[in-house]
Amino acid sequence: MKYRKMTYNKKLQVSSKGNNEVINITDSVAAAVNESGVKDGVVTVFVVGSTAAITTTEYEPGLVNYDLEAVFEKIAPANAEYEHEKTWHDDNGHSHVRASLVGPSITVPIVGGELTLGTWQQIILIDFDTRARNRTVVCQILS
Amino acid sequence: MKYRKMTYNKKLQVSSKGNNEVINITDSVAAAVNESGVKDGVVTVFVVGSTAAITTTEYEPGLVNYDLEAVFEKIAPANAEYEHEKTWHDDNGHSHVRASLVGPSITVPIVGGELTLGTWQQIILIDFDTRARNRTVVCQILS
Amino acid sequence: MKYRKMTYNKKLQVSSKGNNEVINITDSVAAAVNESGVKDGVVTVFVVGSTAAITTTEYEPGLVNYDLEAVFEKIAPANAEYEHEKTWHDDNGHSHVRASLVGPSITVPIVGGELTLGTWQQIILIDFDTRARNRTVVCQILS
Repeated sequence: MKYRKMTYNKKLQVSSKGNNEVINITDSVAAAVNESGVKDGVVTVFVVGSTAAITTTEYEPGLVNYDLEAVFEKIAPANAEYEHEKTWHDDNGHSHVRASLVGPSITVPIVGGELTLGTWQQIILIDFDTRARNRTVVCQILS
Repeated sequence: MKYRKMTYNKKLQVSSKGNNEVINITDSVAAAVNESGVKDGVVTVFVVGSTAAITTTEYEPGLVNYDLEAVFEKIAPANAEYEHEKTWHDDNGHSHVRASLVGPSITVPIVGGELTLGTWQQIILIDFDTRARNRTVVCQILS
Repeated sequence: MKYRKMTYNKKLQVSSKGNNEVINITDSVAAAVNESGVKDGVVTVFVVGSTAAITTTEYEPGLVNYDLEAVFEKIAPANAEYEHEKTWHDDNGHSHVRASLVGPSITVPIVGGELTLGTWQQIILIDFDTRARNRTVVCQILS
């Protein structure tokens, strides 16, 4: 039980090429936790916007450059017809659907000042949009 | 760093027609945050029940009335055979599977009293059940 | 509003047979909440590792032994080709993709000392790996 409580906020800026790019943001999140000084708590990692998502994976080239995209392409193909695209005359209907499925945030425990990730488990941003984007990721640390 | 801490709870009642209805609950969640007086913290938005889910999307008619449902119908079709339906002699096996995939909750940062959502990013409840339901959504606000 | 604040941590050890086994961890999470003494707060339930996931479902045999797996097998088939497997000469590419889709954690509100789950809504670990594993699940309770 720890009684000294705080909320610490850090906004990360992440440049992405879009098109299912998978970006490892673990080090940036860990740095924010370190800055906060929190030893026991949680960090919520939340991406602003509705065409990107946050989850975890083993960050190795096979998964992040091929396998994840292949499954998303099967679930919600880029070249299928989406009503969203008729609304806005754009091309990212699949980006929105994929983002909603995975979700915009995860919450990771902090124990002894460290994220409780596995050795082969990294925090990733997947940018599903169809163009390069500058993304804001909000890290909210509570203890 | 902020040291005045609290937990604020608000239960939302949401009426749904089921059948993949997508309901925008952003204003209700924002109102709960406002009531709480919390300036820096998080809100966990959790739907009670195993045939609905919480995520974010751009709340526009193409996505919420067509595109999301089309992808869920491909992943877990309503008229496929599910063992769950043999157990209970009901028809909502697909509803359960879709809900587990998306998940029952999201956690959104609060910064300066505001949810850190994007302009085109709304908090949604998707009701996958096969009939009208009155849903309870728990907003738990921590600072 | 409650002002006595704490962070309580509990690590659960969960033995799994892998291969999409779905394990009901609700009682263990509820026991951790009870131990913490927290009446109003949240519990983040996070699985360490990138081939398992946490979500909720109705824990009944049809869903947990058949229906969930059937849909995951359709989304990311076990016997498809994955680049991940070429990297490591292993066989669990599908396990990683499924785990990233569902996500490693959920956050559940605690109100009046109880998890706000529905009667037919249980917290589950799905182990997607292709062998038996001993999993660590971190429960982080904040109030």
